[in-house]
Amino acid sequence: MFESLFQSFEDTADAAHGAARIEALRVELARLGLAGFLVPRADRQQNEYVPPSEERLAWLTGFTGSAGLAAVFQDRVALFVDGRYTLQVRDQVDLSLITPVPLAATSPEKWLEQNLSAGQKLGYDPWLHTPGQIARFEAAAKAAGAELLAVEPNPIDAIWSDKPAPPQGRVNRHPLRLAGEPASQKLARIAKALGKADALLVSDPHAVAWAFNIRGKDVAHTPLPLCFALIPKDTPPSENLPRLYIEPAKLDDETRAYLSGLATLAEPQSLEADLVALGHDKARILFDAATVPVKLTKALQEAGGTADIAQDPIALMKARKNQAELEGARRAQLRDAIAIVRFLHWFDNEAPKGNLTEIDAAQALETFRRKSRKLKDVSFPTISAAGPNSAIPHYRVTNSSNRKIGKGIFLVDSGAQYEDGTTDITRTLAVGKPSAEMRDRYTRVLKGNIAISRALFPKGTSGAQIDALARNALWQAGLDFDHGTGHGVGAYLSVHEGPQRIAKTGMVSLEPGMIISNEPGYYKAGDYGIRIENLVCVEPRKVKGGERDMLGFEIMTLVPIDTRLIAPKLLDADERRWFNAYHAHVRRALWPYVEGDVRKWLKNATKPVGK
Amino acid sequence: MFESLFQSFEDTADAAHGAARIEALRVELARLGLAGFLVPRADRQQNEYVPPSEERLAWLTGFTGSAGLAAVFQDRVALFVDGRYTLQVRDQVDLSLITPVPLAATSPEKWLEQNLSAGQKLGYDPWLHTPGQIARFEAAAKAAGAELLAVEPNPIDAIWSDKPAPPQGRVNRHPLRLAGEPASQKLARIAKALGKADALLVSDPHAVAWAFNIRGKDVAHTPLPLCFALIPKDTPPSENLPRLYIEPAKLDDETRAYLSGLATLAEPQSLEADLVALGHDKARILFDAATVPVKLTKALQEAGGTADIAQDPIALMKARKNQAELEGARRAQLRDAIAIVRFLHWFDNEAPKGNLTEIDAAQALETFRRKSRKLKDVSFPTISAAGPNSAIPHYRVTNSSNRKIGKGIFLVDSGAQYEDGTTDITRTLAVGKPSAEMRDRYTRVLKGNIAISRALFPKGTSGAQIDALARNALWQAGLDFDHGTGHGVGAYLSVHEGPQRIAKTGMVSLEPGMIISNEPGYYKAGDYGIRIENLVCVEPRKVKGGERDMLGFEIMTLVPIDTRLIAPKLLDADERRWFNAYHAHVRRALWPYVEGDVRKWLKNATKPVGK
Repeated sequence: MFESLFQSFEDTADAAHGAARIEALRVELARLGLAGFLVPRADRQQNEYVPPSEERLAWLTGFTGSAGLAAVFQDRVALFVDGRYTLQVRDQVDLSLITPVPLAATSPEKWLEQNLSAGQKLGYDPWLHTPGQIARFEAAAKAAGAELLAVEPNPIDAIWSDKPAPPQGRVNRHPLRLAGEPASQKLARIAKALGKADALLVSDPHAVAWAFNIRGKDVAHTPLPLCFALIPKDTPPSENLPRLYIEPAKLDDETRAYLSGLATLAEPQSLEADLVALGHDKARILFDAATVPVKLTKALQEAGGTADIAQDPIALMKARKNQAELEGARRAQLRDAIAIVRFLHWFDNEAPKGNLTEIDAAQALETFRRKSRKLKDVSFPTISAAGPNSAIPHYRVTNSSNRKIGKGIFLVDSGAQYEDGTTDITRTLAVGKPSAEMRDRYTRVLKGNIAISRALFPKGTSGAQIDALARNALWQAGLDFDHGTGHGVGAYLSVHEGPQRIAKTGMVSLEPGMIISNEPGYYKAGDYGIRIENLVCVEPRKVKGGERDMLGFEIMTLVPIDTRLIAPKLLDADERRWFNAYHAHVRRALWPYVEGDVRKWLKNATKPVGK
Repeated sequence: MFESLFQSFEDTADAAHGAARIEALRVELARLGLAGFLVPRADRQQNEYVPPSEERLAWLTGFTGSAGLAAVFQDRVALFVDGRYTLQVRDQVDLSLITPVPLAATSPEKWLEQNLSAGQKLGYDPWLHTPGQIARFEAAAKAAGAELLAVEPNPIDAIWSDKPAPPQGRVNRHPLRLAGEPASQKLARIAKALGKADALLVSDPHAVAWAFNIRGKDVAHTPLPLCFALIPKDTPPSENLPRLYIEPAKLDDETRAYLSGLATLAEPQSLEADLVALGHDKARILFDAATVPVKLTKALQEAGGTADIAQDPIALMKARKNQAELEGARRAQLRDAIAIVRFLHWFDNEAPKGNLTEIDAAQALETFRRKSRKLKDVSFPTISAAGPNSAIPHYRVTNSSNRKIGKGIFLVDSGAQYEDGTTDITRTLAVGKPSAEMRDRYTRVLKGNIAISRALFPKGTSGAQIDALARNALWQAGLDFDHGTGHGVGAYLSVHEGPQRIAKTGMVSLEPGMIISNEPGYYKAGDYGIRIENLVCVEPRKVKGGERDMLGFEIMTLVPIDTRLIAPKLLDADERRWFNAYHAHVRRALWPYVEGDVRKWLKNATKPVGK
């Protein structure tokens, strides 16, 4: 009845091949005169989802986490992983060959400084690291008397005989009615924002997609066209067109014609030579610190140019959605909510029978979403987590981890890609009667979600400043959660988008039009986890008698929040009022689109909560 | 009856001399072949209060603000000031000669880039600027094709004929019973914290004072000995003693004997040569980015050494007060509170008669504090502000600004230096019947103060994260205030101490033992201002059933908060409970020390607030 087309639950770990592949790489390194080689989980543009052709770390070690770095030497392999993956890595790799190193304990640079010997050469692929990463590794190598060496082509590619071809996903134009601003106008705005730089090298493919109003199909879950662009500073446009470095095979005639009106189309292979030529002309080029390969900054610098490595000015432009993008997001949210409410109704009928698994639920949810016929992809693999699995914030279900959904807590964190918007929502559901402790924790998490939802703050306030509002009710009980409160979300782009965030480190001011998640949680390891996530959008607010330009949040997500887990006495009158008004708003919005039992379910799920 | 010994209310502005002095400087610059010269309001250690011998900017221009920078050219003088001083500077300088430039509109580097011509030489005194400042100015000069040139001696000193002598304040030992940790142990801790550096150059005199357990008398309001220290990394101490660069005239025999047991005593003039020698030995020296003169980092670098310019590790050690320092701070607070309560009783009797001025109030307060016979200094010039003056957060009363205290609001922000602790407190007082709006604003400010006072947060939380708690009640009404919520406070050291702060930019984690101010406010320009400030101290908290290491605040200040300005209906039950408990605590603490009418006043001032 249900199936998933956009996500797989296969166990992709492949530890068994590790020995032979690492041995082959060692032979190759010896041939090249290298003591060791760095293998990051990264492609040339530091993407969150990378094409299969770039999964070198997984191919070599079996580790499939979304972040990691291996340092491969003749006698040892260190694999650096963050807190999300310290357990997973031990299940996925051959521990007799590979030593997982938690990043919290030892940074790669510290490890390299301690493990490199004087005179050794450590290789890296200059396309897969940013200048900032390499600067740190170079300092570590220097401290040990060793040398860091850029190596091309990547030695893994020499031994990876059945390496998949790079993606050639078809690029399509993102319609103006959804983008809301012609690409020509965006490009002109960017050209004006370059300060002293002669041009901007756009290496973040999200930024290229936004600037040119295009979308692609090169990676999973995000409609990215993998390509680069070079945008010159504000000059008579006829003299100095932007250049778009993109595989010709990705463009059909219509898209090629559209893009040719905006930019000179060039082969990706010509980018390096163009930067060398700019270097010879002593050009000053602005690069995006987070995504640019060190290969490109060095090409410019070594030819005599100046590299300004900073934040891509497009990031902030892209973060502030315009009216067309916000209207699209609202339509996407309504469509998504209709699917989720049907799923929740189905879940409440089926789960108590005791036969559902986490995979069943994930497949059902994707199927309900597909029924809209507008689903382009899930925006990330669904976190469908029963009981103790819900205590793992980044849990991903596979055939081997798949649990029956029993009495207790079920947490589902999922999102969709529609052409008019990207969604992300978490609901925590009760199966059977929850414990008093679960209701206490759930209500505190809900109080945090409500505090952010109701926040009113002046222009210029950063995400760091309001982060505590999401945590205060937990703090009062000596509790907390170990992730940020919220991340930015794109407009039919990445579900994780910067620079704005609600977190201890969120120093960017919140501005009207920014879409951001509001997702406080609570996790009791080995027992259960709770998270309640809505997407919200920063909007201007008028306050009677006020003196400042104030901002607040429009709540974009339109799905009931499970009331069976609430301890009503923990909500104060203002919180109760907000919560019941939100549910009334959800009910009104969805009412015309649901019928029969689903409508009954909706009515019941949005009944006002009393004292 | 009352007088002030530690602060003056003279109008020190001296615009009339500007023309002659600037002309003399121009002659000197022409002689030196300089197009211009930079004159910062700074001494060699970037102190908040500088000795009279370092007040070059005030001598040259008449401007007496605590921060500023003049760029003096043959045909123009730009004087850069921050938001606190944009009005004051226009009253103090000759506007026909000097153009004030608000920093918010134009940075000095931007101005220099626009105003320097190719080939010009711009001079600066390398003792008065940090490496970070000079790096920015050098980039600006380079962009304009001009050159930045270190000039010694300072050309102003050549024309300042009656320049005061540098201070030779007597240094004394800070007793171990107050410091709580022997200097030998502190120096050993510092030596262990140097990482890769061979030594730390301590250029912040607060850090020298803390590390060696000494205090001095070289500047106003802060018991600083102006001196430098060089602390080598952890090695057998007999082989490699710290060096303390201090004027011999500042030391009596006892202090010299004490310090000789900890360090090699050296003339300040020998510091530069010592750094050059270290450079020849290829030494790596850690410098404090905030205070080190670029003269010293360049001396090391040009001789071949490596300069690590970062945060002095002493700053964080000094910020975490030990038990002896905290006990001292509590004694200081009790002593201070007794004086302030006597002042408040006096004020409530006198102010309604309508004859008091701001200066009268400041003199009375200092006199009540001096009666303890323990007052060493005020910790900053008292902000004694009536009516519209209270709307200026950094107001300082002078003979010409002095107002009669009439009906409405009187704000007094003051502090004391006692040998056992430094205090800082603001109270906002009603004279006559306050308006409904004043009571609304005052109560919102109070709610912010209470929210910080009651905050409970996990270890690792930064000041930025809890800043919003202080503002939320104002935000709800569309209001805010434009300064941080809190700054660190020293232990018989500076009343403004980093690195911790409660502010949008406060990224340092709050740790037990840190003393910090809690001072939300509200300012209605031209009308009235409100601020309620207590000092608080971070302390560990146990929460029943909690899972995290939690922190909260001990309230150190023991002075009633004016209840006549409260709108009780704006306080919720928890806030009322906290407020009445605080007042009961204040009453119990002060009761044994006040008598007669003052005791009656205290009883009345701390009566519980009802609904």
